[in-house]
Order: sequence, then C-alpha cells, then structure tokens
Amino acid sequence: MLTVSIVGASGYAGGELLRLLLGHPEVKVSQVTSRRSIGDPVTIHHPNLRRLTDLCYVSMDRLEPCDLLFISLPNGLSMQYIQDLIGKAGRLIDLGADFRLRSLPDWEEWYRRPHLHPELLKEFVYGLPELHREELKTARWVANPGCEAADSILSLWPLVKHGLVDPQSIIIDAKMSSSQAGRQPTEASHHAERANCVRSYQASGHRHTAEVEQELSLSGKACRVAISATAVEMVRGLLVTAHCRLSPGVKDKDVWRA
Amino acid sequence: MLTVSIVGASGYAGGELLRLLLGHPEVKVSQVTSRRSIGDPVTIHHPNLRRLTDLCYVSMDRLEPCDLLFISLPNGLSMQYIQDLIGKAGRLIDLGADFRLRSLPDWEEWYRRPHLHPELLKEFVYGLPELHREELKTARWVANPGCEAADSILSLWPLVKHGLVDPQSIIIDAKMSSSQAGRQPTEASHHAERANCVRSYQASGHRHTAEVEQELSLSGKACRVAISATAVEMVRGLLVTAHCRLSPGVKDKDVWRA
Amino acid sequence: MLTVSIVGASGYAGGELLRLLLGHPEVKVSQVTSRRSIGDPVTIHHPNLRRLTDLCYVSMDRLEPCDLLFISLPNGLSMQYIQDLIGKAGRLIDLGADFRLRSLPDWEEWYRRPHLHPELLKEFVYGLPELHREELKTARWVANPGCEAADSILSLWPLVKHGLVDPQSIIIDAKMSSSQAGRQPTEASHHAERANCVRSYQASGHRHTAEVEQELSLSGKACRVAISATAVEMVRGLLVTAHCRLSPGVKDKDVWRA
Amino acid sequence: MLTVSIVGASGYAGGELLRLLLGHPEVKVSQVTSRRSIGDPVTIHHPNLRRLTDLCYVSMDRLEPCDLLFISLPNGLSMQYIQDLIGKAGRLIDLGADFRLRSLPDWEEWYRRPHLHPELLKEFVYGLPELHREELKTARWVANPGCEAADSILSLWPLVKHGLVDPQSIIIDAKMSSSQAGRQPTEASHHAERANCVRSYQASGHRHTAEVEQELSLSGKACRVAISATAVEMVRGLLVTAHCRLSPGVKDKDVWRA
Repeated sequence: MLTVSIVGASGYAGGELLRLLLGHPEVKVSQVTSRRSIGDPVTIHHPNLRRLTDLCYVSMDRLEPCDLLFISLPNGLSMQYIQDLIGKAGRLIDLGADFRLRSLPDWEEWYRRPHLHPELLKEFVYGLPELHREELKTARWVANPGCEAADSILSLWPLVKHGLVDPQSIIIDAKMSSSQAGRQPTEASHHAERANCVRSYQASGHRHTAEVEQELSLSGKACRVAISATAVEMVRGLLVTAHCRLSPGVKDKDVWRA
Repeated sequence: MLTVSIVGASGYAGGELLRLLLGHPEVKVSQVTSRRSIGDPVTIHHPNLRRLTDLCYVSMDRLEPCDLLFISLPNGLSMQYIQDLIGKAGRLIDLGADFRLRSLPDWEEWYRRPHLHPELLKEFVYGLPELHREELKTARWVANPGCEAADSILSLWPLVKHGLVDPQSIIIDAKMSSSQAGRQPTEASHHAERANCVRSYQASGHRHTAEVEQELSLSGKACRVAISATAVEMVRGLLVTAHCRLSPGVKDKDVWRA
Repeated sequence: MLTVSIVGASGYAGGELLRLLLGHPEVKVSQVTSRRSIGDPVTIHHPNLRRLTDLCYVSMDRLEPCDLLFISLPNGLSMQYIQDLIGKAGRLIDLGADFRLRSLPDWEEWYRRPHLHPELLKEFVYGLPELHREELKTARWVANPGCEAADSILSLWPLVKHGLVDPQSIIIDAKMSSSQAGRQPTEASHHAERANCVRSYQASGHRHTAEVEQELSLSGKACRVAISATAVEMVRGLLVTAHCRLSPGVKDKDVWRA
Repeated sequence: MLTVSIVGASGYAGGELLRLLLGHPEVKVSQVTSRRSIGDPVTIHHPNLRRLTDLCYVSMDRLEPCDLLFISLPNGLSMQYIQDLIGKAGRLIDLGADFRLRSLPDWEEWYRRPHLHPELLKEFVYGLPELHREELKTARWVANPGCEAADSILSLWPLVKHGLVDPQSIIIDAKMSSSQAGRQPTEASHHAERANCVRSYQASGHRHTAEVEQELSLSGKACRVAISATAVEMVRGLLVTAHCRLSPGVKDKDVWRA
C-alpha cells in the first residue's frame, strides 16, 4: 500500500487525480492540501466524491512524509515550494509546468520570468510513459505533460520518429474546452459569455509549444511546431488536429502502419 | 427628441436597454453611469455596441437632468439613491425590484429587509403595458416587472380574468437561462459547472411570486401562485410553463378564445 | 451463468441494456435480434461496444431458448410477437409499453388501439423494484416502467403513501432529452432544429400518466396526475419536477423524513 | 422593382435567401419552387417567415419569366436543369457547386462525375464581390462560393496578393456547424449523435479546396491549399483558421496593414 498525498487538491486537475487515486487498490491517500479551504472536507469542491472519502484539506506546512507526492499548483508555485516538498516524499510528480522543460533559456523565454531552481530542471523526467517508460520506472521526480502537449506528442511521435513528415512545418490546431482554464470563475469563463462560442483565442505562441518541440526532437530530428488554440463549446477534453506535410514518397499505408 | 440616461449600464439589462435606446429614432442617450468603470467606454462591457456609440461611463453624482431616467441597479440599491434620482428627471423607470410591490409588508417579507422609502411604494406604476396602459401614459415613476413575473402574468392574465382557472392553485415552472443571473462571474455561472445542467435550483419561494400574485389579483380574484425554477442549458430568455386547474365546465375553445 | 437474449437491440434502449449485460459477471449474452441489420455486428449501431463483443444480429425467427429474454421493441410490436417469445425463455422482461397497464380499458384509451393479448395484461409485473420487489423475485413476465413514469413514481411514492400530499392534484413537469425519442432521425430530432431548444411539446395527455396513476394508487389513495413535457438542450436522461399540494398540517421535516 | 424567383426554396440556404429577399425594398419575390412540397405554403418549412409572406411552392415546370433567378439545389441538379432555367431570367445566380470551377478537369476530378454542360463553365462569374466586383455588375450568370471557400478566400486574399505568405503551404482548419449539412435528417445529424461533438470528419480532400485554389491563384501566385474539417457543437456559421507560413522578412504590422 503506497501512501500518497496531493498538494493543491481543490482545482479540477487535483480533483480528478484524487478521484482516480481513491479508486486505486494499491494506494492510500494520506493528505490533501489547499491554501484557501483548510479544514473543509474535499467534497465541498468535489461533490462527486461524496461517500468515497471524508478527507479534509490541511495546510501545506502540516504535510507529513509519504511515499509519493503529487503537486497540482498554478504555474510558478511549484518551484517556490519545491525544496520543502522534495523532502517529504520518496517520489514526486508535478502536474504543473515548472519542471517540464530541460532547457533553462527555453523555460525563461516561454514563461517570461526567472526560474527559481534551474539546477533541478534536468533532474525531472517528462511524465509521458510512451516516450520515457524506462526512466519513469526509477525516476524520483516527474513533470507531467500539459494537456495540448500530451495529445500533440502522442499523435505526432510515430510520424516524426519514422521520418514520414517534415519536422519543420508542424501545425497544431487545438479545439479547447472550458474546464482547461481551471475552476476560477472569470469573465471569459462566465457561462453567458463562454457558451456556444467558437473563438480563436490564442492564434500563436502557446506555451506548450516548447514541450512539444523538446519531446519530438528526441526522435533525432529538430522539430518546429506552431500551436493555435480555439475555444469551442465543450466542457472537458480537447481535440488536437496536427497538420503535417508528408515527406516525399510517403504513402497513406506508411502513415497507418506507423 | 427625448434625452434619456441610464443609471447602471454595465450589466446585461442595462446593456440591452442601451442597445434598444441607441436604435430609437426619438431618443438621445445623454449619460450612462457605472460604479466601477467610470471613464471607460461602454463598449468595454458591450462590444456589440462598437461603432454605434462612443459614450463613456460617468459616476452617478455627475448625472445631469434629463427627460427620462432608467435605473438598472442590483436589488436594494434603487431605494438607496431614489431621492436624488427622482430629482433628475421628469420620468423614471426602475428595472429593479425595489418598487414593484405596492404592499410594504409583502415587500419586506419577500425581500427580508426594511424598505428605505415605503412612502413611494404606492407612487410607482407596475410597468406592464398590457395591464396598465392608461396609467403608464401619465406615470412619473414606473417599476418594471421581473422576467419570470412578466411571462407568468401575461400567460395567466386572460385565464384568471375570465374565470377559466382556479386562481388558488397556480403553479409556475420556469426554465431559466444563465444570463438571468447577471454578468458577475460566480462558481455557479462558471461554464464548466453551468453547461449542460438541468438543476432545480429554487423549488419554491421565488421572490417574483409576490409580483405575480399582486398583478393577477387585479382581476378581482385572490390568487395563490407557486413558482419553481430550474436552470437549463440556455443563455438568454426563459420559458414559463403555467400549470392551472380549469374551472368546472371550461372547454379548450374557451381557453383559446381568451 | 444465465443465458440472456435481447429482441430489438439496435436502438438506444437495447444498446444500453446490452452494454450493461456485457459487463455483468453472471450473464452470458446469447443472441440479439434486429429486423433491419441481420448479419451485421452490433458494433455498427453501438461503436462503444467495440472490443467488448463480436455478437451479430440475428433475425427474430432464429431465436433459441434462453433463461431470460428482454424485449426492446417500439410500442405495439411486443404484443404482436409475445406468444412466440414467451415460449423461448423461462423469464421475460419487456422494456416497452404493451404490458405496463393492468386495466384493458385504460390501455386502449391511452394507446388508442385494440390490445392483441388482453388476457396477459394481469400476468405481467410492473418492473419497479422499489414497489414490487417480492413479486419480481418470482415473476415470469415483467413490464419495465417508462422513463418519465419511473422518475415520477419514485419521487412521489413516499409522499403519497404517507398521505403528505393531495393525491388528486399532482402535476409533473418533465424536462426531456433528445435520446428519449430514440435513434430514428426525424425533422424534430435534426440537430439544427433540436439544438438549444426549450419547447413545450406535449402540454398534457402524456401516455405515461396512466402508469403513474396505476402505481401511485397502490398506496390505497386514488391519484390524479397531469404530465407536461418540455424538450430542453440535453442528450441523455430527464428531470422530473413533481408539483404537489401538501396535506394540511404537514411540515417540511415530515417530507424529508418520508 | 426586380421580380425574383428561387428554384429550390425548401432547404436552409433557400430559406435564408427568401428571408433576405422578402426584406429587400427593391425586390418582389414571384415564385419559389420545391420538388416535394408543391402547393404547400413556404412557412411549412420556414415558420420564421409567418406573417411575412403567403407564397406557396410551385413545381419547376410552372416557373414564369423573371428578372433574376436563384438556384438553390443539391450539387449535380443545377446542371441538369440549367438549359431550361437560363431561358427564364435575364440574370441567374446559382448557390450550388456546379458552375464554380472554370476548369473542366478540376471539376470532374473533385466532383467525380462527368459535367453535363462544360461549355457553360467559363460563362459563370464567381460570386465573390471582393474579388469580382466589376464583372459581377454585368454578369448574366453567377456561381456563388461555397461557405468554407468564401471564408477562406476572404481571409487569405490580402496575404497572398501582397506576397506575405508562402502560397504553396496554406492549411485551412474549418470548424463546422450542423446546419451546413442541410435540412435532411440523417444519422449523423441526429441530435443525440451530433450534440456535444468535436469530430474530425474530413481530414483532407474537401471539395471546396478547388475553389479556394482557383480564386487565390488569381493573385498571380500558384496556390496549394489543404482543408481539414471538424464538426463542433454549433448550429450556424463556421470558423475558418487559415494557417500560413510568413514569407521571409514579413512583420506583424505588414500583415495587419494588408
């Protein structure tokens, strides 16, 4: 039985993670933290977990040692707390973006701030089993992929690896749902504004570009990727359409086989 | 040309009103107020009005005299400012609930606070032309109906007036849209929570009950009404299903004729 | 291991039933029939069952004996085939409306045609375990409730049984989804027409009224029910709002306790 | 006053056209045809036109001469009837695809059938005023653009014309609504199947590709375009995201200026 805790379990990602862990036969969820809801039952934010748990949120400074620690904090907060957190658990998985890129200049360019722990960037393994299965088995620290990034990499990896497409002209057109923006109510997420919309809200420059390029380049081919994001009427999930130019001579069946 | 101003024009109701007034051939919109957006162009909140107006919000204390003043404030604020506002205009129309009920005890029971200007309650005319056309022609002060109330009264009035239904057992089942809750983002209006919902959020005790009973009782029959509100997937408008018990002997064609 | 077959498994109800049975540890699905898709794999109509089954549709006349037979046919067809079908299985459950009412005059009034097997009406048990658990344990033939009927009966039964509400003035306001109309494409179910609608499509006279009255009257109180159906933007499920008049002296806590 | 008739006014395109023409101050709608609804009032299919017209459908062979004739038929039917129809009116506008392409080989490749009137292909003017304003003023026969084509050409034309983008690597990602598939109910358009979907239903090979390439190439640059279509939850309209590679040295402000 693995003891597992979650730092930041009041958001949508933390809540889904908690739901999965509560159903896992080899896991015991020890503690869950939240900055704003200390003492409240987790079912306040996740009513779907009623009758599955009576856990209450604790503050991060009351976190006890555990086997595996998940971090589900807004970007920029993981690296603030990371030094404390890595002392708490033998293994740690960060759902946020702070440790996904191995290159410090890339991270600082895409996230536009100084990184607080550049020395740790190369210590994290990118948490995509299809590309890093062996490393993940022994990794102490894991940085899980962003949502558009995971979809994009998984769909493109076989094509790039087998040289079936031009790796320099990849265009990713992502159709986005409302829950991807998290649980904080804003004007943009207000139902009367967000419902029925089809809106190109980030035509270029999406931060997940860096992850996708980093991972696809592990194929040995330098990749150049552009991501364009459109909000559509949808609550969960996303659809990524990856537009590629086939390499000369490639047939449909080569693509299907890959 | 009538000069018209609006107190509180940053919300959905004020914005729709502004759109209608800007298209009205006999109206000139003079000023619009907002507590939070002073100095901003109205198109910040109402981008659909771009190229139709270059009005900017002013603070309420800079309001100048006009022919007709609309008030579109959250419940409870109209009565705070009413004394100043009635000095500004020959005629005034309040879109809020503060002056819709003629009975002080009824108002204080349904809105659960003391009324600040009970002496004005009987001075306002209920702004439903189908019932008060003559009074409205000369009214100085008008209190416009609530949304469920207007729909309910209009559908029930002919039946109650002609004695076709039992006025003591009227049940109104209202299917509600998200914009009815206004433009303030909240957890309940967050797209990821509100989308695709069908939720009985106020099974009984809706405040508009008082208006509907007041107006239907003008037929000479004492009316008893219950309103039940269900949120459905819809952005604008609402659908009211008014369930009545037919009076003995009433035929379908009597109903259609009424 | 129970051998189970389904007559009419190409529609939505048959498909959901099949999905549940395929996951049932004590059931083996033997055969599924369809009039139009003989020889086709069931996954043509139910792609969600891919990799869960390789069943193909057979014609009804090739049906072999089994332990339990489900019928999921359009109203009026069950009674045409029932004589053959009851010979095929020790137990039979009909999802349609042909055997839900015990009273022949009621059935013929609500369904507006002669019943082909009136002698069987009293032999079927109404398949709602909350009301008929003991009978169902030994029943050979079961008629499952309609969807609005099941919801209505379950919500009202405790109130009617304990005498908390007036059984003569029950109003059921049902909010309906599109899948309730089945899988046959029609103009009314066409996405461009059906999407975003809130439409009172059957204000009164819904056929399930008869079932609800029949079952609630088992409480010993004669019940009179009116059902009104409104289509809302929703694919699955339905919400029933049951409007009742409380009996004199009944308190909120009596309702909750019941 | 122009007399105008419509061949094929029972579908969505014909219905919208009719609505616009009924509101046009210089037009009198003479006749509207339908193959299946002869004698029926147009409001059977277009209830939004109630009280705006009492036109009834006539059969095509009862069409009388008029000033301007619109054709709104499924692809392939215009060319069957065109010889008769051009005799009926001084000017003719076809909303369908039969005469949009000037090149016979292109047409036959994309539409996979022989063209019945290849001699007419060069006589039609492509009905996009932004590109063909002068020709359209005197054109007798006009072929109106397809919906994705019009959006794509209008967004790309300024970029291609000014040489700001590589004309050989244009990718169009179209987000499609349900009404684009017309008013014929099918399994794919059934609300319970189509609602809430985000589905890549034509990854490549969309027929409108030919129109877009034809028109953009009028800039003098040979263009190569790929269209990918995704169905999203939406009833009307479409959103086209046109992905281009900027020509070397082009700045954002060059794009905005164009």
